[in-house]
Amino acid sequence: MNTLGSFTIRKLTGLSAFRTGMFRLLRSVSGITVAQIDVEVAKLLELKLRLGGDDVKHQFVLKTPKGTRDYNPKQMAIREKVFNTIVSCFKRHGAETIDTPVFELKETLTGKYGEDSKLIYDLKDQGGELLSLRYDLTVPFARFLAMNKISNIKRYHIAKVYRRDNPAMTRGRYREFYQCDFDIAGHYDPMIPDAECLRIVSEILGELDLGDFHIKVNDRRILDGMFAVCGVPDDKFRTICSTVDKLDKMCWEDVKNEMVKEKGLSEEAADMIGQYVSMQGGMDLAVRLLEDPKMSQSKQACAGLSDMKQLFSYLELFQVTDKVVFDLSLARGLDYYTGVIYEAMLGPAGATPPPPPPPQAGAPKAEESLSVGSVAGGGRYDGLVGMFDPKGRAVPCVGVSIGVERIFSILEQKAEAEKVRTTEVQVLVASAQKNLLEERLRLVTELWNAGIKAESMFKKNPKLLSQLQHCEESGIPLVAILGEQELKNGMVKLRTVATREEVRDSCVCVCVCNSLIAIKSRQC
Amino acid sequence: MNTLGSFTIRKLTGLSAFRTGMFRLLRSVSGITVAQIDVEVAKLLELKLRLGGDDVKHQFVLKTPKGTRDYNPKQMAIREKVFNTIVSCFKRHGAETIDTPVFELKETLTGKYGEDSKLIYDLKDQGGELLSLRYDLTVPFARFLAMNKISNIKRYHIAKVYRRDNPAMTRGRYREFYQCDFDIAGHYDPMIPDAECLRIVSEILGELDLGDFHIKVNDRRILDGMFAVCGVPDDKFRTICSTVDKLDKMCWEDVKNEMVKEKGLSEEAADMIGQYVSMQGGMDLAVRLLEDPKMSQSKQACAGLSDMKQLFSYLELFQVTDKVVFDLSLARGLDYYTGVIYEAMLGPAGATPPPPPPPQAGAPKAEESLSVGSVAGGGRYDGLVGMFDPKGRAVPCVGVSIGVERIFSILEQKAEAEKVRTTEVQVLVASAQKNLLEERLRLVTELWNAGIKAESMFKKNPKLLSQLQHCEESGIPLVAILGEQELKNGMVKLRTVATREEVRDSCVCVCVCNSLIAIKSRQC
Repeated sequence: MNTLGSFTIRKLTGLSAFRTGMFRLLRSVSGITVAQIDVEVAKLLELKLRLGGDDVKHQFVLKTPKGTRDYNPKQMAIREKVFNTIVSCFKRHGAETIDTPVFELKETLTGKYGEDSKLIYDLKDQGGELLSLRYDLTVPFARFLAMNKISNIKRYHIAKVYRRDNPAMTRGRYREFYQCDFDIAGHYDPMIPDAECLRIVSEILGELDLGDFHIKVNDRRILDGMFAVCGVPDDKFRTICSTVDKLDKMCWEDVKNEMVKEKGLSEEAADMIGQYVSMQGGMDLAVRLLEDPKMSQSKQACAGLSDMKQLFSYLELFQVTDKVVFDLSLARGLDYYTGVIYEAMLGPAGATPPPPPPPQAGAPKAEESLSVGSVAGGGRYDGLVGMFDPKGRAVPCVGVSIGVERIFSILEQKAEAEKVRTTEVQVLVASAQKNLLEERLRLVTELWNAGIKAESMFKKNPKLLSQLQHCEESGIPLVAILGEQELKNGMVKLRTVATREEVRDSCVCVCVCNSLIAIKSRQC
Repeated sequence: MNTLGSFTIRKLTGLSAFRTGMFRLLRSVSGITVAQIDVEVAKLLELKLRLGGDDVKHQFVLKTPKGTRDYNPKQMAIREKVFNTIVSCFKRHGAETIDTPVFELKETLTGKYGEDSKLIYDLKDQGGELLSLRYDLTVPFARFLAMNKISNIKRYHIAKVYRRDNPAMTRGRYREFYQCDFDIAGHYDPMIPDAECLRIVSEILGELDLGDFHIKVNDRRILDGMFAVCGVPDDKFRTICSTVDKLDKMCWEDVKNEMVKEKGLSEEAADMIGQYVSMQGGMDLAVRLLEDPKMSQSKQACAGLSDMKQLFSYLELFQVTDKVVFDLSLARGLDYYTGVIYEAMLGPAGATPPPPPPPQAGAPKAEESLSVGSVAGGGRYDGLVGMFDPKGRAVPCVGVSIGVERIFSILEQKAEAEKVRTTEVQVLVASAQKNLLEERLRLVTELWNAGIKAESMFKKNPKLLSQLQHCEESGIPLVAILGEQELKNGMVKLRTVATREEVRDSCVCVCVCNSLIAIKSRQC
């Protein structure tokens, strides 16, 4: 420890005196350690607490944090249905599933998201490791593969991710939101896994019954090759790419303006890009571009275009070419893509895009800030796992993320007027007279023992009317009514709520099962 | 701003000089505000950063944060099975489900967990609201009820919660862990919902096939009444209660010592408590204690004992009295319980508890730090929702939390030697010769179209042996083998992997379905 020189502060006022004093102190202490700073910080924070928190009057607010929401039972019923459809599809394609913690070491996420990194939620330093909430499921997946030295896997992962973005909750954009990811990792023959990802998107969107949809595909190598032959300087590829990416929200004139006036691209180069990015097609377009005098000069573009041709041949075998459009304007935000990229949109291919949303100055482009109508996206990222591997060993990956929050929003809106059942109760055990609680509980137990979903009201003497109302409200199809007469005869009356048909039987479980089958067959 | 007096520091060394200087500064500044402290803290932290973070060299570590883990596909398969069992039971009892955000406003959690509050994870203040990760699902549930003015609901919620506890991961204790909660909110006739919670615990533990188990029940009012009649001063109820709670880990002598020597209870009072807490029984014990000369003096105890009597009468109707023990030593940690409390343990009732774990000085008693062998717990909390309601309107609640992490640990250990399937693929589309990729993809598409779970290898020319090995390894029961001869005849060879039986057919989908049914019926 060094001896500290003496110093004096005179006639300084308030804060500035405090600061000056503190910094003289800091400057003059050369042997100070981090642990000592921690101690001092803790003391200052304690003082802050005594002074009364954040200078704000503490009025208790009953709400969820900004950008988040609760799911009520009706929303959960919709969510469960969507997840079941998606998971069934993933399983049909032979996927396993994994889960990772909601937070990662901060350094695991560092340097993976470019300028979007500022949207990462950090945890408070409470001693120990520095942690951040996961920002997507792709980086944790890559970390998982590298950590466990897994070189091939087909996995899905459904979990919440976190982004300190400006939420637009009415359009299904939140700070806490689900991602449903399916990825294929491993060294395989080109474009087969890529084509399966597109088949999966097509199956899921078809089964979710969201109306017409189409999937745009492109390739990072085609984009980069195109920029090169159009004369975009190497160091401007990324920024020009992110401008192109706005074509789904802005008209070409505005996009061109941004390239030329904001980003300093030559007008000639911009116009050339403009010609390419207006192109849409299928395998034919890939073939044509392979013969394009300019495009064919770029090795990268040719590699991408050959793979695109191959991709479409597999898509034909997978019977999804009617849903997929090769679109040179598709760019996608994230840095880690290295090959094929794709994005699925609701509506028919080539439809006029909806009017652009109000401009948000400096609004960051996050992966899920897909264009309006976009419900899935993904691509190939062959370099990400290598960033985690101590030896840089690469594991090629391709994957897709289903934009379930937007799908929830659409289905929730559709279901607004509808009645959605939030429980699965098959029969309510009711009583017509008083003092039959014990008999009700005995019968409901018998039904549970038989695996039948059943309930009885928690009141000693509920009115029959309120028991029947409960059935109506929550969609319970059957009601088993106990009465003194029936009890004497060892019978129970079973009523179908919708039709008011009644039967009397002593074998209640069998009777319930038969009635449920009858109801179901009537509904078919 | 006040003028700051001058001061001098002479000949102080290193840290102590720094501290003394800082605190003189702090003390002498009377007009300092919280915002100003924030500025200074930020500067100190920046200095810390410049000094090199946490005194640790930054070497990239490939790991999950302390106290957390990834779930690999095998663990996920076990987890899915456990959740399916639990959710089926919750649904059989007519529960709806909800979900809440992973973080809450910090103030929502404030004052709900007593001294365990220090285990709460806070998010970094990045501007905006102060947030904390949820510590359990009960407080968010209460917030949800108050916010949406819901006065009755039967809901389950399965989600992860977060506690900065000392993890004991081998025993299934983590910093990130699942809770599976089932709660009944509403004004009902006493003890009916409480009894249903116990029935649910009993159903779930029975179905999970974890071996013998029993459920201890007690009541906060009986405990408080007991403390009162034993002469424990009012202000010592909680602390004595938390000592009693250690009886599952410590012998009576040690518990008594703590009461008398550490907590200043009279030896006489401690001995009296000792007599009561050794009592176990059923409805008979409740009846006996209602007539106990001391206990009967406490109104609270009598209310609890009458309800206990009533509870056991319902448990008899629900057919679970053989699993439930009224045990006066059961205390449970959390402050918010107001009535019945319970905890389920593996092993038969009255079994000698396993040897105590090594003592952890000052280790906090968190809810899930259940005694060894404990796999579920819960109770009645009638006051919690009222803490959130602006008008203090109370909604009585009772619930149970299934300790799934411990259950996962047990089942993972059991499954260590076993082979657990991690995919559900029913048939692999293979080829016996080269150059049949297109045919394989065409067939696998046909199977997907028919809803059959199928896959084909992503190689152009995989060896037949490696395709068959893949079936063996991942438990795929059927393999559809394409060969040139079959293709000529418009047929496919279908082989049952286990028996090597083969059939040839042109209707592959039908053939696969029939074979799967045949395999299933053989397994039954």
